[in-house]
Amino acid sequence: MDTRAYLAERRILVDRALDAWLPAADQPPETLHAAMRHLLFPGGKRLRPALAFAAAEAVGAVPERALSAAAAVELVHTYSLVHDDLPCMDDDDERRGRPSVHVAFGEANAVLAGDALLAAAFECLARDEGGSSAGQRLLAARDLSIAAGSLGLVGGQADDLIFDSTETEPARIESVHARKSAALIAASIVCGARLGGADETRIRRLRGCGELAGVAFQIADDVLDAGEDDPCSLVRAVGVEAAARRGEELLGESLQLLEDFGEPAEALRGLLGYALRRSE
Amino acid sequence: MDTRAYLAERRILVDRALDAWLPAADQPPETLHAAMRHLLFPGGKRLRPALAFAAAEAVGAVPERALSAAAAVELVHTYSLVHDDLPCMDDDDERRGRPSVHVAFGEANAVLAGDALLAAAFECLARDEGGSSAGQRLLAARDLSIAAGSLGLVGGQADDLIFDSTETEPARIESVHARKSAALIAASIVCGARLGGADETRIRRLRGCGELAGVAFQIADDVLDAGEDDPCSLVRAVGVEAAARRGEELLGESLQLLEDFGEPAEALRGLLGYALRRSE
Repeated sequence: MDTRAYLAERRILVDRALDAWLPAADQPPETLHAAMRHLLFPGGKRLRPALAFAAAEAVGAVPERALSAAAAVELVHTYSLVHDDLPCMDDDDERRGRPSVHVAFGEANAVLAGDALLAAAFECLARDEGGSSAGQRLLAARDLSIAAGSLGLVGGQADDLIFDSTETEPARIESVHARKSAALIAASIVCGARLGGADETRIRRLRGCGELAGVAFQIADDVLDAGEDDPCSLVRAVGVEAAARRGEELLGESLQLLEDFGEPAEALRGLLGYALRRSE
Repeated sequence: MDTRAYLAERRILVDRALDAWLPAADQPPETLHAAMRHLLFPGGKRLRPALAFAAAEAVGAVPERALSAAAAVELVHTYSLVHDDLPCMDDDDERRGRPSVHVAFGEANAVLAGDALLAAAFECLARDEGGSSAGQRLLAARDLSIAAGSLGLVGGQADDLIFDSTETEPARIESVHARKSAALIAASIVCGARLGGADETRIRRLRGCGELAGVAFQIADDVLDAGEDDPCSLVRAVGVEAAARRGEELLGESLQLLEDFGEPAEALRGLLGYALRRSE
């Protein structure tokens, strides 16, 4: 399993869909549409779309079945980065080596572009694409809205903003990671699997798998930058080595939940391992 | 038809659902959940939920069928007000006689509360409530996401922010109104009707009805405050009397589209007239 090749191939699929489904940058209001596309293209690794595709494959479907889920989770991820970078939030002027959206287009357009990206995510999921049933797409929309909301991504960001840097209880740190990072990782896998036609037993296992792996990825991020700047970091609380061990432990538990999925889950396993150890 | 009584009765329905479906204000993260509820309760007239209920009734359904649509459109409306009030947008310190969300809870929490309210809207629509089919709920989610997005509400707000106050072409002013205000009015009616089981012919008429009435309501707003402060105002362009006439004309066209709906559409007709003439 060549995970880099898998990511590159799946990127072509999702990028084509995102480009086709979003209004063009020269469509009015032009500034808003350019701002929506600024961070989306060329974007990052497209890990979340790849997880959605791989989850559909893990339950025996062709990857194309998960196309609207793949686009939707990347849109939610991108919206969250645009808003996280705002001056009133993390106040980051750069993202992926380029000016962040509020620097390039102004703060109002950054707020609005994020809002429109979030709305567009649900428009994608509601599309009649890929051959899955309305019931499956509706369950995926519910999963994604919960992952994006106040008990998921937004709630994790709210807690992260006010995290007390003297707090060293690992469970409290992992609780923020679970919402800020892992909820959308799990939703990427679950939404892809739903569009792939998974039954509820497999959905439960895949959700658990994504929740564990998502926390592990955030710990790996903290290990990579040695927990600098971020008050909510396991590295700061227990040191680099113990944090790295905890990341591996969580990934191991995550992979155990995929045991019964056999060969079709190889791409998903590869992506999870790759995302944890991408520094190597 | 006593429209005030109708609004009061339907408010009880939607408020109960919103209160039950949103996390309590003392559920962590408490500040975020309190910020989400700050503008939602007691809230405004609940015109959009009432339109959703009345549209379901207009196509022969009981109002309860439209409950999740009623909650969803009020959440989208509330999110948009929270973000519109931000310092980088309209910079309003007060809303409905109380401090706006960013004044009461800080700017970061206002951005996050708006984001979470938007996500919660889609969570409501994806709920298995009221007995409508997954296909109908999915179509409603699509309608709502398009109305909320860059070609609807967000796009209208983006154009409104940079509107050139020397622009006096009525069609350009109405184009901003159509997206900033009327798209969500139309979606409220359409989503309610979809959950009520409307066929596509009736959906088309109801959408047109909502689009025309929504522009009329925005013109009525401008007439009420004599177009002050807002560069994008028909009153500023053509004067109070001509603007008021245009509002009535649009409402008349809107009501014509309801002609074939007979007695079951009485509540909807009453709401449309009430919303245009609420100053009287």
